Amino acid sequence: MSVSEIVRFDAETVASSLHPDRFFDPEPSVRRIARAIYERTHGLPLICPHGHVDPSLLADNAQFPEPTALLIAPDHYLVRMLYSRGVSMESLGIPTRDDTPVEADPRKVWQLFADHFYLFRGTPSGAWLAQEFVEVFGVPAVLTSANAMLVYDEIAEKLTSPEFRPRALFDRFNIEVLATTDKASDPLLAHQAMRSSGWHGRVVPTFRPDAAFRIASPDWTGELTALSSVTGVSITDFTSLLRALQAARRHFIALGATASDHAVVEPWTEWLSADVAQQLFARAQRGDATVDDQRRFEGHMLMEMAQMSITDGLVMQLHPGSLRDHDASIAARFGPDRGGDIPLRTEYTRNLRALLNKFGHDPRFTLILFTLDESTYARELAPLAGLYPALRLGPAWWFHDSIEGMTRFRHAVTETAGFYNTAGFNDDTRAFCSIPARHDLSRRVDANFLAGLVARHQLSLSDAHDVARALAYELAKSTYRFDAPSTVSLFAHAPKGHE
Amino acid sequence: MSVSEIVRFDAETVASSLHPDRFFDPEPSVRRIARAIYERTHGLPLICPHGHVDPSLLADNAQFPEPTALLIAPDHYLVRMLYSRGVSMESLGIPTRDDTPVEADPRKVWQLFADHFYLFRGTPSGAWLAQEFVEVFGVPAVLTSANAMLVYDEIAEKLTSPEFRPRALFDRFNIEVLATTDKASDPLLAHQAMRSSGWHGRVVPTFRPDAAFRIASPDWTGELTALSSVTGVSITDFTSLLRALQAARRHFIALGATASDHAVVEPWTEWLSADVAQQLFARAQRGDATVDDQRRFEGHMLMEMAQMSITDGLVMQLHPGSLRDHDASIAARFGPDRGGDIPLRTEYTRNLRALLNKFGHDPRFTLILFTLDESTYARELAPLAGLYPALRLGPAWWFHDSIEGMTRFRHAVTETAGFYNTAGFNDDTRAFCSIPARHDLSRRVDANFLAGLVARHQLSLSDAHDVARALAYELAKSTYRFDAPSTVSLFAHAPKGHE
Amino acid sequence: MSVSEIVRFDAETVASSLHPDRFFDPEPSVRRIARAIYERTHGLPLICPHGHVDPSLLADNAQFPEPTALLIAPDHYLVRMLYSRGVSMESLGIPTRDDTPVEADPRKVWQLFADHFYLFRGTPSGAWLAQEFVEVFGVPAVLTSANAMLVYDEIAEKLTSPEFRPRALFDRFNIEVLATTDKASDPLLAHQAMRSSGWHGRVVPTFRPDAAFRIASPDWTGELTALSSVTGVSITDFTSLLRALQAARRHFIALGATASDHAVVEPWTEWLSADVAQQLFARAQRGDATVDDQRRFEGHMLMEMAQMSITDGLVMQLHPGSLRDHDASIAARFGPDRGGDIPLRTEYTRNLRALLNKFGHDPRFTLILFTLDESTYARELAPLAGLYPALRLGPAWWFHDSIEGMTRFRHAVTETAGFYNTAGFNDDTRAFCSIPARHDLSRRVDANFLAGLVARHQLSLSDAHDVARALAYELAKSTYRFDAPSTVSLFAHAPKGHE
Repeated sequence: MSVSEIVRFDAETVASSLHPDRFFDPEPSVRRIARAIYERTHGLPLICPHGHVDPSLLADNAQFPEPTALLIAPDHYLVRMLYSRGVSMESLGIPTRDDTPVEADPRKVWQLFADHFYLFRGTPSGAWLAQEFVEVFGVPAVLTSANAMLVYDEIAEKLTSPEFRPRALFDRFNIEVLATTDKASDPLLAHQAMRSSGWHGRVVPTFRPDAAFRIASPDWTGELTALSSVTGVSITDFTSLLRALQAARRHFIALGATASDHAVVEPWTEWLSADVAQQLFARAQRGDATVDDQRRFEGHMLMEMAQMSITDGLVMQLHPGSLRDHDASIAARFGPDRGGDIPLRTEYTRNLRALLNKFGHDPRFTLILFTLDESTYARELAPLAGLYPALRLGPAWWFHDSIEGMTRFRHAVTETAGFYNTAGFNDDTRAFCSIPARHDLSRRVDANFLAGLVARHQLSLSDAHDVARALAYELAKSTYRFDAPSTVSLFAHAPKGHE
Repeated sequence: MSVSEIVRFDAETVASSLHPDRFFDPEPSVRRIARAIYERTHGLPLICPHGHVDPSLLADNAQFPEPTALLIAPDHYLVRMLYSRGVSMESLGIPTRDDTPVEADPRKVWQLFADHFYLFRGTPSGAWLAQEFVEVFGVPAVLTSANAMLVYDEIAEKLTSPEFRPRALFDRFNIEVLATTDKASDPLLAHQAMRSSGWHGRVVPTFRPDAAFRIASPDWTGELTALSSVTGVSITDFTSLLRALQAARRHFIALGATASDHAVVEPWTEWLSADVAQQLFARAQRGDATVDDQRRFEGHMLMEMAQMSITDGLVMQLHPGSLRDHDASIAARFGPDRGGDIPLRTEYTRNLRALLNKFGHDPRFTLILFTLDESTYARELAPLAGLYPALRLGPAWWFHDSIEGMTRFRHAVTETAGFYNTAGFNDDTRAFCSIPARHDLSRRVDANFLAGLVARHQLSLSDAHDVARALAYELAKSTYRFDAPSTVSLFAHAPKGHE
Repeated sequence: MSVSEIVRFDAETVASSLHPDRFFDPEPSVRRIARAIYERTHGLPLICPHGHVDPSLLADNAQFPEPTALLIAPDHYLVRMLYSRGVSMESLGIPTRDDTPVEADPRKVWQLFADHFYLFRGTPSGAWLAQEFVEVFGVPAVLTSANAMLVYDEIAEKLTSPEFRPRALFDRFNIEVLATTDKASDPLLAHQAMRSSGWHGRVVPTFRPDAAFRIASPDWTGELTALSSVTGVSITDFTSLLRALQAARRHFIALGATASDHAVVEPWTEWLSADVAQQLFARAQRGDATVDDQRRFEGHMLMEMAQMSITDGLVMQLHPGSLRDHDASIAARFGPDRGGDIPLRTEYTRNLRALLNKFGHDPRFTLILFTLDESTYARELAPLAGLYPALRLGPAWWFHDSIEGMTRFRHAVTETAGFYNTAGFNDDTRAFCSIPARHDLSRRVDANFLAGLVARHQLSLSDAHDVARALAYELAKSTYRFDAPSTVSLFAHAPKGHE
């Protein structure tokens, strides 16, 4: 059955439910300039250097499940909002760890979601969904109690067609490169499968070794075992841990990785002596490591990672300041990544001093910093990025990945760090089908910000076009070294698409 | 003498001194939408769920004093600004505790105030006074050295008429419900008198037990004595303190209270064992409690209050982060609440974790959070409110209860918490005659914020109307449970006005 | 050779490269009002109450060096941005302490700078340079790789003419008074020379005694020796240190100083007993003072400085919250003030309580507070300034001395502190030729902010004109006491220009 046969919504009406000038300043001169700038960036390929798409999605290229499993259950932005207004996770069909029964009818969940769609008024989730509905699925931008089942059926029907398989969407979305995020101990089987399949899409892993650094966690020894297993390095002491990490990084690089990623509560950095590092390791082996031991160990491991980056060229990303699983009962019942993490005030100036003094001037090193604490944008991050050659600022992260959040980011950092110490956009999402909407929103917001500068005669239109292209495409590509000649032998046989 | 006979200002000129589009974005399309939204909310009844009006005002319904005593002396926003520019409190007639003589002629104080009225340019006090002058008293919006005595006489004259008695203004202001704030040990005689009088106005107390929790304060034992006296519970240990508090809450609820209110320096929460709580209590009885003891005791009492709320249904409000009486000399000479309190940086993510983990999912519980630290809006408060079902964000508080402050609040919290995790507006004022101006300003600012979303095609006009009504009226009413069927027997005989 | 003979750029084209409405809101009604307000302030004389111009510049009145030495090397805003993008300081000709060779050809440096001029898009440096280029030097606003050498030659040629000598520019810039910043131990020879020369320009020193308070620094004893030498007071104990400081302050005042300036990491204040102060002094003499000792000593010295101010009338400035020389390698190789200082989160409410409680009500005392932590504007600084009569808020400082930064400052502080608790603008610059551009930008931003208030009907145009004049001229003049009858005998013979 062809897609055209099952359309239940009038294409023109659907298309008109997204205003072409959305998110632009209503002042006519600014809007006109914003539109002009955006018109030149909206068609650029998507660079997706940081995100959480499951690589098996593209390795398997299987048909997507029905709409609820695809669009609602995995999106913690959506789930947390409904939960916050009294809709239970069970009624949303979120699987429990203790096998408490949950709603099994995806159509009922979809209807419940539609009944609460008004909660997303004025939110980025609402904006992303609107565009995803219209442009990916050809259904109306706004879900209502009344249209919920019609929309569900329409999307469900479309998901059965070959045009809606992951690789087909990857091409339709015009993705030039997509990075996933993977544990250091991950054997990367899906990534290997993709390579072997001869598919032209460029999908690369990102090296995330946090679990190997959390020496106070009960999961630490298990992670070391896994890391030993995948690297073939027997990890018995601190030195062999370093060797294993180097081996794992090589494995990631062989599959196209250009970056590592690191999450810590506090971005403390400190170079410990080999003796002290080994003492902490030994204490962890005995199961005696404290939270403070872990903080010091992580602080040292960030230094080791920077040092390895200088040798092997992985760009280093740092995402500090999230208190994971603030809501212990959600974590206990539904597991991590359900929206229960909450930001913390974060300090960068003193915490990063050791790392930046040691590695911040090295031309081989790139560190991309993220924050959930916007008060640091103008106070700490922009002054640091406007000084250290190795430093770039990542885009507005998580709760701040939004119209207002991205606008505040540009307003706060541009005057001190300029545009060229920022790292472009990344979508940071698990929700594959939302990727185009997220990039589009970012391009619109940056176009609008630049239009404001042009309208206030702070920037020429011609310069604004240059900057817009950098923010939408070039800076992500160059900062994450996707423009470097590939040093990966495995990569040689793979066609490289848009590069 | 009728009011019309004493009018000294031309009504048309006076009315025109308030622009009908004030506070709206000057961009014509935004302004047009803002006006359309505001036109539908400006006439809604006022829900005043948190404030500091003296209940005896409405119990006695006596004539207001002359203008200076009514409008200047009790308004610490006004007094502190003049004081900051070198105008002594004595010359403003603020009574001293040590009987230092102060200016006794209210006309001289009024003239001095008028001479410094320019200090309020660009401030919310200036905006509130302008509207209060024009709409309540029919005098010009701007006070000048030249018109000061004319304005004084006009207001003084009007205050003598029955139309300006408190209950008449309560009706004219279209107040649906007004909550006062009262110590836990308050016998609530004025509230009882209002009930007995058969007056139809809904005025309710709010349970504020802070003084009973401040175990390091010299006033603590006195507060316990008062609490024993009003509840009939002899407070000899921690357990009997809890019983007394429960009894006092019942007393408040019987007089219509729907909420408690709590002020702490730091919003620390921690569930102490009964033994530890009793130890702290005993130490306080001996006069040995330290500031840190108090912090722990208060942290535990917040947990107890949440627990009691689950049983008795009082909505819990938390106002942390004010360092009271920063200026010790003002406090010593003029007493508290003279504008000498200064905000502190405040942490919520870690501090509230214990309380939210224990009670944050209970559908019977509502916690309304306030802050003086705007850096927490997007970083901590919106993420928390967008997660825990029990949590709502109170409106921009105190120094942030202003055009810019309310605008920043919406910009910072909406994308993560949405509109429906906020608690509507409250005026938080002692200044009864300023209530309509404060609500009007809030409705204008919210209309303008929503108009921006409509003009940028993020929200339909129809949705904006819905949201505006929620922000102006419904959310305050429902969050503070004024829409619940009253469980108060005393209340049965009172007509309920606009409900 | 006359200037007109060497003009290489068409005057009309150059002038048109600065838009007359730059930095104003594009909304036509706001822009129209902003222009009207700005038209009345742009010609006011410049009050420069805080800055870092070398006084010998105006004492010697020698020809400026060539463009690179004049405009690039001393401007750490420019150097740090290029450095952050991988341009070495050596290639910019920044002299090293270890005699590493650096680029010696200023034309090569200028070309390199021009090649990277795009980095300043959207930055205040870019805006200042544009205006400086056009209005001071008559060259185009935007430097390009292509026009770099032409611009260089044009500026170099102009610098040879008498019209470009420092004192000629001082008059052309319409500077009414210029304050330099000088160590407490500075003999102020350049200032004395200026006085002796009979030149009419008002240039005054500012008393900066930080080095004498840093008891944990290896430079401390040297500074005491210098202070002894310049004051003739033998410093042997804490009491004689106070006497020497008093003497040094008298010396500064005799040369026209109206202010002191103080930089600390944390603005802690505490009145120590004489015994404790002497103990700390003695420990420092033995070389044993710790960083914490220094913090307490500095906290006490701020109190002593406030006390001295009450007697001798110096206005006290406090610039806390900068971590100096964050990048140790830059400091080691190139010395301080190369752009390597990074802001820290800063607390004012508790830290300043001792000082404000003791001196904050004294009508003889003025304290001007600065911050690099914008989160304190609305939370701490505006509430404090809106309370204590002695307190004024200095303008947006350093990284925040920018279009967005100054706009955020007004938005955050005005509603609580009003306009009249702020201290007007200061340019805080070493770059003499950038002074007019910096004041002009500030006047434009304030005009635009006020225009927004007028367009939203929060302020009348007439009041806006009054406020604009205060912000651009009067507040700086009165807060820094430049309008007071001079008590300086030395000053009697000097004509005072615009006063």
